Amino acid sequence: MKNIVISLLGERGVSVVDMAQLVVELQKQYLPVTMEIAIENIEKVLDKREVQNALMTGIQLDKLTEKDLVEEPLRTILKRDDSLYGIDEILALSITNIYGSIGFTNFGYLDKVKPGIIGRLNDEKEAQVNTFLDDLIAGVVAAACSRMAHSYADNRL
Amino acid sequence: MKNIVISLLGERGVSVVDMAQLVVELQKQYLPVTMEIAIENIEKVLDKREVQNALMTGIQLDKLTEKDLVEEPLRTILKRDDSLYGIDEILALSITNIYGSIGFTNFGYLDKVKPGIIGRLNDEKEAQVNTFLDDLIAGVVAAACSRMAHSYADNRL
Amino acid sequence: MKNIVISLLGERGVSVVDMAQLVVELQKQYLPVTMEIAIENIEKVLDKREVQNALMTGIQLDKLTEKDLVEEPLRTILKRDDSLYGIDEILALSITNIYGSIGFTNFGYLDKVKPGIIGRLNDEKEAQVNTFLDDLIAGVVAAACSRMAHSYADNRL
Amino acid sequence: MKNIVISLLGERGVSVVDMAQLVVELQKQYLPVTMEIAIENIEKVLDKREVQNALMTGIQLDKLTEKDLVEEPLRTILKRDDSLYGIDEILALSITNIYGSIGFTNFGYLDKVKPGIIGRLNDEKEAQVNTFLDDLIAGVVAAACSRMAHSYADNRL
Repeated sequence: MKNIVISLLGERGVSVVDMAQLVVELQKQYLPVTMEIAIENIEKVLDKREVQNALMTGIQLDKLTEKDLVEEPLRTILKRDDSLYGIDEILALSITNIYGSIGFTNFGYLDKVKPGIIGRLNDEKEAQVNTFLDDLIAGVVAAACSRMAHSYADNRL
Repeated sequence: MKNIVISLLGERGVSVVDMAQLVVELQKQYLPVTMEIAIENIEKVLDKREVQNALMTGIQLDKLTEKDLVEEPLRTILKRDDSLYGIDEILALSITNIYGSIGFTNFGYLDKVKPGIIGRLNDEKEAQVNTFLDDLIAGVVAAACSRMAHSYADNRL
Repeated sequence: MKNIVISLLGERGVSVVDMAQLVVELQKQYLPVTMEIAIENIEKVLDKREVQNALMTGIQLDKLTEKDLVEEPLRTILKRDDSLYGIDEILALSITNIYGSIGFTNFGYLDKVKPGIIGRLNDEKEAQVNTFLDDLIAGVVAAACSRMAHSYADNRL
Repeated sequence: MKNIVISLLGERGVSVVDMAQLVVELQKQYLPVTMEIAIENIEKVLDKREVQNALMTGIQLDKLTEKDLVEEPLRTILKRDDSLYGIDEILALSITNIYGSIGFTNFGYLDKVKPGIIGRLNDEKEAQVNTFLDDLIAGVVAAACSRMAHSYADNRL
């Protein structure tokens, strides 16, 4: 199942490395993090069934919206990534939640500042519907940061 | 928008009265609740944009699953309402949340015991995909109960 | 830290076995669960830092309320376990959340029906402030049920 | 009850105006917001019982920690605002949640960047325990931003 999710992400333009780069960026001032450790933490997050389900569901909605298979008025809301539509944030936070509440801060920051792959997904919104995807990626990255912080405190990093 | 959501619910077999009956059932031992008050509270919950978005999104996923427009492996997960798939609960709780955390208990109880319309939706799962719908209805009913309890305490019931 | 939390629970009248009994009760119709497996799952939940923090914080508030060290009007709200006070449910759900959203249903059911140790905690509310404790125990039991269901599906039970 | 909460905030060094300034700062690029509108929105958020309960509970924990009335090991965790302790974020998000999930992003941003009063609370941590307070303020400000955005869309601003 993890492999299905990773190839689904690839199909939409996101790699494990893209996400790991954001983990390094966010955590390097606090923890001795390498790309290798960041990749391992992203992979562990993607192992979780709840994470896989959130990613599959959100990306499916993006794709069905792209194909005009979603009914109005939801279609228009999703196409323009309406700022008052919050279901994308809800799915993303269900990912972050799994590693506890310390990830909320990183999630919000990523969603506001849109660094790296999250900004690129946001920029390409003309070509592809990324309403769910950009938030979900922020959720996965924030979860990986939380996981790493807990592991470090437990001397398991 | 509320009217769109109410007619979408109707199309899937759920009326405001069905939901209000559950509110009366759950609250009658605690509060002086009539069907009229229960209906008013369900209507107020359906006024909220976040509630409308959760309902439209979940029902859309049920309908697209029914039409085989959702890709595998998500399609099978949604068709059989897999007990380890929790995105339906997540959308439902985002509804309940809007009236605070006191609704969680009623949500869980409704989802476990499946009284009234929730049980009927569950029984007709052969004919129609209700993976999201039954949880969403439990979320709306639990939210209406919370709203009513807050109003009663504020002498606004 | 886990041992500190377990002895704190013991001090308030709750054992790992009390919680495991509820896990068996809730899951026996779905999964081949023994007391041994249930205890192991409760222990794994209690290993999580976020769970330990929620338990320590909630029990501390119960104890400080008992000693009249909490200021008014919060003291009265906590002493009478006011039904419109939802911070206890919020802490409890932060425990359940860690194993995904499938635990919400069990949490709500436990909090409504109050079987076993949860009912006993509720009954002794004259003698001891259990405003947070009963919800937190429901949260831990629901989390252990979710953990077990995920493990079973992964052939790890 | 709102007045009790406002004077509790004042006692800890936070005014409605401090919070309104952050609302203006965050929203001025999107909406025609004045200090008057921002103050009104903060006040409406503080009207909600769930918000009052979260504020009273969190501030009470800060004050009891200051007075060394919290037991170890929780006391040390709270005194140093341990980065792996997430109960403060959980209470804060229960505030933001009431106006839907669109507030999560602003909450995370405020908690990371710490502008205005949130930074001042963080700086004075030697003199006063603000473990809960800084997050709660971020939660209130994010909630007020969400409330305002919903009102604006409904032509009620």
